[in-house]
Amino acid sequence: MALRIIATGGTFDKHYDEIAGKLGFGASHLPEVIKRSRITIANTLEELPLLDSLEMQDIDRRRVLVSCSHAEEKAIVIIHGTDTMRETAAVLGVANLDKVIVITGAMIPYEIANSDALFNLGFACGVAQVLPSGVYVAMNGKIFNWDKVQKNRGAGVFESLS
Amino acid sequence: MALRIIATGGTFDKHYDEIAGKLGFGASHLPEVIKRSRITIANTLEELPLLDSLEMQDIDRRRVLVSCSHAEEKAIVIIHGTDTMRETAAVLGVANLDKVIVITGAMIPYEIANSDALFNLGFACGVAQVLPSGVYVAMNGKIFNWDKVQKNRGAGVFESLS
Amino acid sequence: MALRIIATGGTFDKHYDEIAGKLGFGASHLPEVIKRSRITIANTLEELPLLDSLEMQDIDRRRVLVSCSHAEEKAIVIIHGTDTMRETAAVLGVANLDKVIVITGAMIPYEIANSDALFNLGFACGVAQVLPSGVYVAMNGKIFNWDKVQKNRGAGVFESLS
Amino acid sequence: MALRIIATGGTFDKHYDEIAGKLGFGASHLPEVIKRSRITIANTLEELPLLDSLEMQDIDRRRVLVSCSHAEEKAIVIIHGTDTMRETAAVLGVANLDKVIVITGAMIPYEIANSDALFNLGFACGVAQVLPSGVYVAMNGKIFNWDKVQKNRGAGVFESLS
Repeated sequence: MALRIIATGGTFDKHYDEIAGKLGFGASHLPEVIKRSRITIANTLEELPLLDSLEMQDIDRRRVLVSCSHAEEKAIVIIHGTDTMRETAAVLGVANLDKVIVITGAMIPYEIANSDALFNLGFACGVAQVLPSGVYVAMNGKIFNWDKVQKNRGAGVFESLS
Repeated sequence: MALRIIATGGTFDKHYDEIAGKLGFGASHLPEVIKRSRITIANTLEELPLLDSLEMQDIDRRRVLVSCSHAEEKAIVIIHGTDTMRETAAVLGVANLDKVIVITGAMIPYEIANSDALFNLGFACGVAQVLPSGVYVAMNGKIFNWDKVQKNRGAGVFESLS
Repeated sequence: MALRIIATGGTFDKHYDEIAGKLGFGASHLPEVIKRSRITIANTLEELPLLDSLEMQDIDRRRVLVSCSHAEEKAIVIIHGTDTMRETAAVLGVANLDKVIVITGAMIPYEIANSDALFNLGFACGVAQVLPSGVYVAMNGKIFNWDKVQKNRGAGVFESLS
Repeated sequence: MALRIIATGGTFDKHYDEIAGKLGFGASHLPEVIKRSRITIANTLEELPLLDSLEMQDIDRRRVLVSCSHAEEKAIVIIHGTDTMRETAAVLGVANLDKVIVITGAMIPYEIANSDALFNLGFACGVAQVLPSGVYVAMNGKIFNWDKVQKNRGAGVFESLS
């Protein structure tokens, strides 16, 4: 079993720029986070351009698809913004790759108090090793099929679409 | 799907007592940790006496077994000290319950910098929903069968026993 | 010796709103921060409207002045945004109150990793007990007179104005 | 104005050793803490052997005294364990150096949640720049003369000795 972790940005990876006084993107937190997690399973981190998922274009989603289809690993975890997680999941879902792709992210950036980022990464790294091939969104301690999920923005939680 | 989380102490839940100047046990961190994780899946937290796993006796392991066998939930996550995780796993394993029981813990207490606790909890809460019935140890981003695992104390990691 | 701490917002007290996905203001962190600091000196926390200091108007600065002049305590620490710290310091400085007023803040919000907030609060609470009456800005481990300080925005540090 | 910071260990600088499962001493946190504090005042960090202050011997206190008397800086902050802070303060106090020496520490290690370490360091770095020559203990947001202080171990706070 080996794991590929693909960083695409999103709330999980936002960083406070003290000169600009804003949250944006700097170096990914993932190398530190993975080290902290003490994972001994073989893993590769691939960093794509870090983006707010509201600013992701078709070309960005295709880049994620290309990374997934070229990956040597069967199990893939994607760190992604929550707002368009579903759209990227759909691009990957219709491609019907023979892989287990689990998309996760965070409601609070990793570097901010009370963040869910580390829990979500652990959750995703776990289920990616056990689920059958397919594309999933993993948030709020739940696993959703890529075509049965929506973000309830008012409540800040992911829900099943029936 | 519903989840039972059973707290038994261990490094995960240790707390620094500033009067004694030592790590020990106070109130469990689990209520705060679960809230932080933003889990929307139905879950129940059961707090057993919080113990250093080196001080766990047979009676303590039987108490964990009783909790598991009485649980209404099929999926159970147990927070446990790492040093005798394997012994408790064995007590649960031979009982052969029709449940998915995932035992996890932490190398660094939740309240100390660089802790793996939140990652491990997320990992365990994920795989407990997907694995077939059985008893597992989940540490270092890996899933071990209860009778095929050992802690390498010198390296501080869990390994497969073949 | 007694201390008044006046919260006016600024980077120090910003809070990440996970629904909006932005930093803004919620409840002040100061009650928690003061408790954490284990201050046994008599102290009173006064919370004014929490503002980004770039949005502070004359009326907001006058409100700070009124709080200072009405304070029973001789030693006052003000938590303030860094961008217009100097302007508020000037309003207080020309008023020439017989008080020790120390204005501080943070380059990184208290709730974000690597924040200087707690250091700066400790620094300000210390010097406010020892300095002679006057109005000071305390940032970067330095004490500046209110009319001899500027923020170097490119470098993100406070400097003496000679 | 320049500042010397002398690390001697104590609760402030304790580190959790995940292999031993205990708090002890590793590399000092002070380089990271000082960087985080964004101090622009000239400062030098001197690391003495890191000790639990209950294990400090006369020779260890004399080493601190030698460091203080040889220091080029007038203002000195010493990071020290709380249990024998008073004893070291006495050794420095009777030496009657023409320096401002401020001894501080923490009730909770820097790397553990809810620590007062960063507040105390900021407090000490501030008052060391303003107080007249002498030896002081700075804890709980208070400044104590070296011969008028005791730790109330039951309450975990420092008090004036009258």
